[in-house]
Amino acid sequence: MENKPQLTIVKIGGNVIDNESALKAFLSDFAAIEGYKILVHGGGKIATKTAEGLGIAAVFHEGRRITDKPMLDVAVMTYAGLINKDITAQLQALQNNAMGFTGADGNLILSEKRKNAAVDFGFVGDVVAVNAALIQVLLLQNVVPVFCAITHDGAGQLLNTNADTIASTLAVACSNYFDVNLLYCFEKKGVLMDAEDEESVIKNLTFEAYQQLREQKVIHSGMLPKLENCFNALQQGVSKIGIGSPEMLKKNNSIFTLVTA
Amino acid sequence: MENKPQLTIVKIGGNVIDNESALKAFLSDFAAIEGYKILVHGGGKIATKTAEGLGIAAVFHEGRRITDKPMLDVAVMTYAGLINKDITAQLQALQNNAMGFTGADGNLILSEKRKNAAVDFGFVGDVVAVNAALIQVLLLQNVVPVFCAITHDGAGQLLNTNADTIASTLAVACSNYFDVNLLYCFEKKGVLMDAEDEESVIKNLTFEAYQQLREQKVIHSGMLPKLENCFNALQQGVSKIGIGSPEMLKKNNSIFTLVTA
Repeated sequence: MENKPQLTIVKIGGNVIDNESALKAFLSDFAAIEGYKILVHGGGKIATKTAEGLGIAAVFHEGRRITDKPMLDVAVMTYAGLINKDITAQLQALQNNAMGFTGADGNLILSEKRKNAAVDFGFVGDVVAVNAALIQVLLLQNVVPVFCAITHDGAGQLLNTNADTIASTLAVACSNYFDVNLLYCFEKKGVLMDAEDEESVIKNLTFEAYQQLREQKVIHSGMLPKLENCFNALQQGVSKIGIGSPEMLKKNNSIFTLVTA
Repeated sequence: MENKPQLTIVKIGGNVIDNESALKAFLSDFAAIEGYKILVHGGGKIATKTAEGLGIAAVFHEGRRITDKPMLDVAVMTYAGLINKDITAQLQALQNNAMGFTGADGNLILSEKRKNAAVDFGFVGDVVAVNAALIQVLLLQNVVPVFCAITHDGAGQLLNTNADTIASTLAVACSNYFDVNLLYCFEKKGVLMDAEDEESVIKNLTFEAYQQLREQKVIHSGMLPKLENCFNALQQGVSKIGIGSPEMLKKNNSIFTLVTA
């Protein structure tokens, strides 16, 4: 078997981005990761705050939030502008040669506007293709790509895309060239056996165990699409997936959920 | 003498960016330029509009506009976010593999906060270094870098920088690897002999002629720093500089000012 170089892909959510000192601590841990790496970040409350400030109202259709044009512009301003460039500048100060991207940059992530007969989700895109060849060129130059959750349709339209999906799609696409370790950081220490008990982290979650726990309704709601995403990625070549708090990045940390096929 | 590949660097100002159809026409001409190329864009009125919308007041000190933190955030949102990513997505649709950058991305443009005993300009940076080696790697991958006028200080701080200076500094830095043709697009057809006569374009402006015209006050005010910039760039290895309207990019257009050493 060939020996591919290691690539670590880390996804952080809005809860880290909204907290200046938590973000600083996270970036310092991320910067210390050795070898090739990619960061994917979500949005956070700054988009909502900016939209409110600009008097742009959130639009809902049957309870679902719609990304209309003014809201897409706010997402591009805050995710691709403010947050992405702040993270990039901070990583530069930590001696990581970060480069901030949307999917439009270098055609790195091509998506298509989500179509649904019943609901128009607005400017929301599902990933179609990843330009992994160009990502590899950048990584080999020791560039650290930092992706926000904005993609494009190749016809000039930017689209809002789920950050978890971006992370797993990048992981799958890069697994042709790299031995990929995908880490999802969120507000819990891992997938819990008991939602009420923060310490009940499932340390090793196989697909078999997942299917059982899903049937027993131990794992439910928001965790389901996240884990389906993980098992899909593992099936498509990703080596390892971790789910846990940002503490997971620290070298001596052992509490998180390791998801394995 | 070695034969360096051609590189065209085009700078556009806010007047093009503020006009949707003018921007579309410009990008179509830019996309048709053969060979290696870089685009540098200014800001436009969208930053002012966004600041007004968010209730952020412009701060002045002795008649000079100050970039305070809220105003820097708006610049990053609009220049690096909205405008830069819109241009990138539009160029992708025109089959140019555009990648949008601030100076923080890949440490491409390092600057330092402007120091002045008398006036604090706020978060304004003057260019210190260009990572031309990485720009060359990108160009050789047929990437089309698109720069907005935001740089960084290497210590985590983003800074607002003059777009004309970014264009000329990039041109000088890249002239080690490329035969650089620098084109400044603005609202006139070129440098004029008579400010009242739009057709009085000086077709060829040498340094000698410039010095005479400056003494005769034919060339004055805003044109002076622009042209000083040009002659400095020519002295430091840039091959050719053109100043004119965006029409200058069209193949059959001959009306613009060619600035030569």
